[in-house]
Amino acid sequence: MSARDAVAAAAAPEQAAERGEGAGEGGPPFPVPLRLGDLHASLADPLLDAMTFLNEATTRYPQAVSFAPGRPYEGFFEPADVHHYLDTYLDHLAARGAGRDAVRTTLFQYGPTKGVIADLVARTLANDEGLTVPPEALVLTVGAQEGMLLTLRALCAGPEDVLLVSSPCYVGVTGAARLLDLTTVPVPEGPAGGPDPATVRAAARAVRAGGRRPRALYVVPDFANPSGTSMPVPARSRLLDAAAEEGLLVVEDNPYGFFAREAGERPTLKALDRRRQVVHLGSFAKTCFPGARLGYVVADQEVAGPGGRRTLLADELARLKSMTTVNTPALSQAVIGGMLLRHDCRLREANAPAAAHYAANMTVLLGELERHFPPPERRRLGISWNEPEGGFFAVLTVPFAADEAAMERCARDHGVLWTPMAPFYPAGGGERRLRLSISSVTKRQIVDGVASLARFVRAEAG
Amino acid sequence: MSARDAVAAAAAPEQAAERGEGAGEGGPPFPVPLRLGDLHASLADPLLDAMTFLNEATTRYPQAVSFAPGRPYEGFFEPADVHHYLDTYLDHLAARGAGRDAVRTTLFQYGPTKGVIADLVARTLANDEGLTVPPEALVLTVGAQEGMLLTLRALCAGPEDVLLVSSPCYVGVTGAARLLDLTTVPVPEGPAGGPDPATVRAAARAVRAGGRRPRALYVVPDFANPSGTSMPVPARSRLLDAAAEEGLLVVEDNPYGFFAREAGERPTLKALDRRRQVVHLGSFAKTCFPGARLGYVVADQEVAGPGGRRTLLADELARLKSMTTVNTPALSQAVIGGMLLRHDCRLREANAPAAAHYAANMTVLLGELERHFPPPERRRLGISWNEPEGGFFAVLTVPFAADEAAMERCARDHGVLWTPMAPFYPAGGGERRLRLSISSVTKRQIVDGVASLARFVRAEAG
Repeated sequence: MSARDAVAAAAAPEQAAERGEGAGEGGPPFPVPLRLGDLHASLADPLLDAMTFLNEATTRYPQAVSFAPGRPYEGFFEPADVHHYLDTYLDHLAARGAGRDAVRTTLFQYGPTKGVIADLVARTLANDEGLTVPPEALVLTVGAQEGMLLTLRALCAGPEDVLLVSSPCYVGVTGAARLLDLTTVPVPEGPAGGPDPATVRAAARAVRAGGRRPRALYVVPDFANPSGTSMPVPARSRLLDAAAEEGLLVVEDNPYGFFAREAGERPTLKALDRRRQVVHLGSFAKTCFPGARLGYVVADQEVAGPGGRRTLLADELARLKSMTTVNTPALSQAVIGGMLLRHDCRLREANAPAAAHYAANMTVLLGELERHFPPPERRRLGISWNEPEGGFFAVLTVPFAADEAAMERCARDHGVLWTPMAPFYPAGGGERRLRLSISSVTKRQIVDGVASLARFVRAEAG
Repeated sequence: MSARDAVAAAAAPEQAAERGEGAGEGGPPFPVPLRLGDLHASLADPLLDAMTFLNEATTRYPQAVSFAPGRPYEGFFEPADVHHYLDTYLDHLAARGAGRDAVRTTLFQYGPTKGVIADLVARTLANDEGLTVPPEALVLTVGAQEGMLLTLRALCAGPEDVLLVSSPCYVGVTGAARLLDLTTVPVPEGPAGGPDPATVRAAARAVRAGGRRPRALYVVPDFANPSGTSMPVPARSRLLDAAAEEGLLVVEDNPYGFFAREAGERPTLKALDRRRQVVHLGSFAKTCFPGARLGYVVADQEVAGPGGRRTLLADELARLKSMTTVNTPALSQAVIGGMLLRHDCRLREANAPAAAHYAANMTVLLGELERHFPPPERRRLGISWNEPEGGFFAVLTVPFAADEAAMERCARDHGVLWTPMAPFYPAGGGERRLRLSISSVTKRQIVDGVASLARFVRAEAG
């Protein structure tokens, strides 16, 4: 039974008579049905409707080639491995001296709010990112999304506190801000990728001039979702300097960092951080196992409390976490902990085959776009695209509104799904852009999908 | 290295020189350290400090008999079982026609926001509670805590919306409200257990008279945390009538329902609900496996949106969930799903040994209190306690302040830990009450612990 059917069944006359009967004198009538307008305003946000539409469209066109979802490729995953990973972690606990009862407690019970595998994650960050952080500065979270929610909640004390976000922006951030009734101010990505330092400064000053506090800047330095763009290395230090001058923390989100198309140093903002100004959000969803829903926050900022009490921001995030999910499933932590141990706490190496897969897919996508839209025709039609250095996403600019209606026509008539970009721009924009994801398609699907997409674009443009 | 050591290391002079250097003209100096007062106000809430103190005290006195934590008994759990449960669920998917790839996708990938085992949970609710709800009315959550957060966020649109809570109240609810800047209004538990209908009506009217909207009433009808009290069956229907007359939804939390000391019908409020006025929060933490962190919400209320769109409240909760944790770990759902399948979706039967264990422990606790404080002495000292019909908790009233300092003295000098009740009273109260939990102690520990506790109480009272 679908949700709609369930609702219809619920509204059957004999049941309706049973409801609303309690309305008595003095009080308002019992509210049946609830009105959406009486619920929290985030539920009426067009952003949520856009996401709902996309999910439904994916379900409605199961045969379409889907450039829409940003989910990882499954080919390297085997369910039986979960058993091995779990056992590896439990054996590791035993080898470190935990008795039978202590092993059982770690897996079975409520655990510490900050998590149980911070030591393994810290070791992995040191190996993979050259990032030296004490395990105490880490909080394990239910995906990076919970880390984001906790970070925004901690930093933004009230409506006068503003989060700057690089624009176009990942919907999870604007969504979390919406849930908490926080204001976000978009900072456009510059031509080089990432927010321009001068623009960040101007945005922070404008916020202050309006009587509010700019608290932090959210940015994805590598292969951003949705734009696919990356920040050049020198721009990273400049951005940190600009943020520090404006008293801003930087919230760095790094889900795609391993998936570069070409070798080369791409230091995270946190690795460049000399002021403890960066809060770093990480995720094992793209590099290990989405179904474990495991992420983490590196928050090594000191917090001065009353009576000279000093904590780390990670401790404060954990205190908030006790009010969102209490703690992150020990089961998820044990399985990911086992994966880390199996790979000697070196996920970059372990992800080399996946990185090669995504890189090859991106190269096929860009090559096929090139083939179907050679330069003269491209200019004539007003079509362009970016050439991401890695990650899951590229952006195509077209000479017509790439909105939900267009996406539906493309799916119905040409069997291809993609994601409209406009919902990713908090202050408007992106109306003629669409996002193409290469993460969960085969090369054959990319070849066929771009051919169909080209027919659609020509039909719409012509 | 402890959190405090990490902070001390962080404050070493050579590193301190590196920080704060970015303060430039125009902007405020980079905030090092962050000030707790600049972060969200929930972080300065005494409630959080109380919880932190309790956790630390438990760590400081590892040898003490601990009547403090409400965690379940571990004796019935075996880590190897996790493998069997996981395989059971994956076999179940295959038996229902899922191919190898589909099974992998269900376990490995991001999944539907509402979850993947709603059908099994619905079947279990029908078997165990006589509760018939369509799977579409369910959302799987990361513990009941996330369900609480989502429910409060959906129902309370802004600061004018108020949540009534039975008092003393579970800290997870007042904490979630604090995180969202929502107002809670305590409704004292009546002498029969649970909030009195007349008091609920009066509280709702007072809120409305103050220009605000009372939206819902939070209540734990069976063996409440922290008070241990239960609502008599006739009082349940009267409470639903009173709530309906005042236009209130009822948020029912039911973590301990299976753990009655004596057989008998104890219908949940949701099972008595004829108006779809009850949102029901459930958890597998006490009945299956805390480390999976799996809970659920039954929210079958209709929601009327623009353009005649009808959804269920569960759909709206799922939309909010996409902004808190995206979805509940498929891994946790698969393992709990396997447990449900192994027990033929009948957890009440499966929990019979655990229920017997808790019931016997509670009986020992009450018997030992009786033995150490016979009626004449009890009256002379001004000591009393309640006699819970089940669950994990009983409350002892003493003739002195049962605060953190007293708890520390009791732990240090008498080797017994317990929980001060005052932090559970949102509007003050409970200063001379302490909570005793029997869930994770042995009978021997209860006997020894009550003897030591009696010495402490006499020393303090005398």
